[in-house]
Amino acid sequence: MGMETYNQDFRVPFDYPVVFTRDLFAEKNPALADALQRCPGGRAHRVAVFVDDGVLAKHPGLIPRMQAYFSSRGGTLDLVCPPVPAPGGEALKNDYRRLMQVVDMMLEYQLCRHSFVLIVGGGAILDAVGFGASIIHRGLRVVRVPTTVLAQCDAGIGVKNGMNLHGGKNTIGTFHPPFAVLNDSDFLQTLPDVHWAGGVAEAFKVAMIKDAEFFHDLCEWAPAVKTRNVGIMEKIVRQTAVLHLDHIRDAGDPFEQGSARPLDFGHWLAHKLESMTAYKLSHGEAVSIGISVDSIYAANKGWLPEATAIRLLGALEACGLPVWHPALERCVEQNRLEVLRGLDDFREHLGGELCVTYPGPLGTKREVHEVEREGVAAACRRLKEQKACL
Amino acid sequence: MGMETYNQDFRVPFDYPVVFTRDLFAEKNPALADALQRCPGGRAHRVAVFVDDGVLAKHPGLIPRMQAYFSSRGGTLDLVCPPVPAPGGEALKNDYRRLMQVVDMMLEYQLCRHSFVLIVGGGAILDAVGFGASIIHRGLRVVRVPTTVLAQCDAGIGVKNGMNLHGGKNTIGTFHPPFAVLNDSDFLQTLPDVHWAGGVAEAFKVAMIKDAEFFHDLCEWAPAVKTRNVGIMEKIVRQTAVLHLDHIRDAGDPFEQGSARPLDFGHWLAHKLESMTAYKLSHGEAVSIGISVDSIYAANKGWLPEATAIRLLGALEACGLPVWHPALERCVEQNRLEVLRGLDDFREHLGGELCVTYPGPLGTKREVHEVEREGVAAACRRLKEQKACL
Repeated sequence: MGMETYNQDFRVPFDYPVVFTRDLFAEKNPALADALQRCPGGRAHRVAVFVDDGVLAKHPGLIPRMQAYFSSRGGTLDLVCPPVPAPGGEALKNDYRRLMQVVDMMLEYQLCRHSFVLIVGGGAILDAVGFGASIIHRGLRVVRVPTTVLAQCDAGIGVKNGMNLHGGKNTIGTFHPPFAVLNDSDFLQTLPDVHWAGGVAEAFKVAMIKDAEFFHDLCEWAPAVKTRNVGIMEKIVRQTAVLHLDHIRDAGDPFEQGSARPLDFGHWLAHKLESMTAYKLSHGEAVSIGISVDSIYAANKGWLPEATAIRLLGALEACGLPVWHPALERCVEQNRLEVLRGLDDFREHLGGELCVTYPGPLGTKREVHEVEREGVAAACRRLKEQKACL
Repeated sequence: MGMETYNQDFRVPFDYPVVFTRDLFAEKNPALADALQRCPGGRAHRVAVFVDDGVLAKHPGLIPRMQAYFSSRGGTLDLVCPPVPAPGGEALKNDYRRLMQVVDMMLEYQLCRHSFVLIVGGGAILDAVGFGASIIHRGLRVVRVPTTVLAQCDAGIGVKNGMNLHGGKNTIGTFHPPFAVLNDSDFLQTLPDVHWAGGVAEAFKVAMIKDAEFFHDLCEWAPAVKTRNVGIMEKIVRQTAVLHLDHIRDAGDPFEQGSARPLDFGHWLAHKLESMTAYKLSHGEAVSIGISVDSIYAANKGWLPEATAIRLLGALEACGLPVWHPALERCVEQNRLEVLRGLDDFREHLGGELCVTYPGPLGTKREVHEVEREGVAAACRRLKEQKACL
């Protein structure tokens, strides 16, 4: 039978600024107005603002300050309604009906594809409201103002949105690059210790496999993380963000269509530990444990000098991060560690073939397709001992 | 205050084949299997199939034939469940709950990002099921099998999905390029006349502003369209599809992030006429009238030779397509034509600034930011007279 084929082939360009600043809503701070003015139009830019209610609790004057900021730029920016508080953490990500209310509100205000949705909050609300905004008229312009260390250096600066469905994390979502990201370090200062230090686990993750010099810096800075030195944290956030942004840009597959991978060293175990502890362990804490286990595993295999792995554990603990958790000892049938089920989940997530990132010599990585269960168990035992020594 | 900016900047590559074939599910036809094999994996490709129930009514043996096709390639293709019938036309696009059931079904079968959703049907079901598939795990691989002329040459071959919400068309949706498009002309033969000829209106639309030679061909082929010549229709579909695909690729903005525009000549009026007639006019019929009105308007302005406009009207009528409808005479307050409200809707759709495409000299277009209401009214009157003469 006759057959003809037209091969369609194009590239879609995306660009967005990631700005590092302080006091974003000070009237004299031009960062936000400049970011929105990137596409000048004849009319004032219409903006709807959604704010994490956890952030509002810590910054009670935030809404009036934002309103004053917009009022002072009435000719160019038009706030379509008062900033809308929304539940932070996984609450909104888990609540489909509530998210559809957010979508309906954006529609009621007749936001069009040239309108803006500004989201202020942690990674979860950025994901959920960002997902809603990404499907209205096939994508409004999203400006992200991440307020946690984790979101400022990783989750909030990338191209993904998502929400949870039927108990699965990010079951539905989109790739929708933001219009701009505005990182304000003032928001970090009111974080509880667990979220302050937690984001630094992602910094160690990316330093181990991408940037040896940064790893040395982090080890040196660890005590200053624990004492909540803001200047040090700004450096950590910036460099971690840059490494993640470079990876998105340079790995050749920002929308993960092929088998290109996010920087997920330590994450197969971290995700499992989070769910095993019913999310009592934060993501940052779980990542800290995940990269510890995988680094010891790598050291035992001879891929990473043992001294580097030991140095990582010491630095994580110096930051106030855990390297072990009793859930690592929990067994299921036939004395098999429950946490190993994380490998099965990860294989399914990847579409059938397992591919786990381990650290190679400092600043490099190694991808493997098989993980020895006994090796993981040995690494967990070792960490329990190590923890006692630290 | 200190401020630093990292400018993120990347391009996301997309490519997909658009195949023109016959008898797609004949066991010896390799088109489908070849398309799915584009990304070979270790395991059989998992595929879920959704079929327009309108297509099934005309092709009662289709499901067993598809099952036989997959069975004959059991080593490489794995049908995760029997093909699922789904409501065609706007029914599913309008029904959010029903669509979420489709999403849930895809999740139940544990489709991952390397799994396939094959959709067989008209533009509406391709849009709706494609939208559902595009948000699961941030995008399953979608293979489209468009079954109408309109879908094979325009709506079904592009990068957009969508569904209707709160009475608005495509209120939510995504840009999610398909993994492959398979155009089987056998499906066209069972279309009712209105949908057979309707798609040809889009062919005239694109020929007028992009391809003079194709316009001459279409005028010559018009009687053969009316007598349902399949070979002629295959040529029309192929060339129209190629012109649309070229536009997506070459206009530099496939995801319409800036002000790049789809080929929407005649569409401001077509959309309005569809809703004014409660969708009794099909999209193709409405486009036929829309390009007629806008061509006469352009001829009156001196942008297009009048003879070309008259030739268009004759060819559309020869195909069996309308160039006028009584709704064009309907008035609202102050004797203003109701159809002119389509310009307001269009302006809002575009985000505030009107931009309407008119034909320039044959094969070219002209974009204008203002439309004279009296000029539209005059064009409508002229068409009513013209219709009497044809």
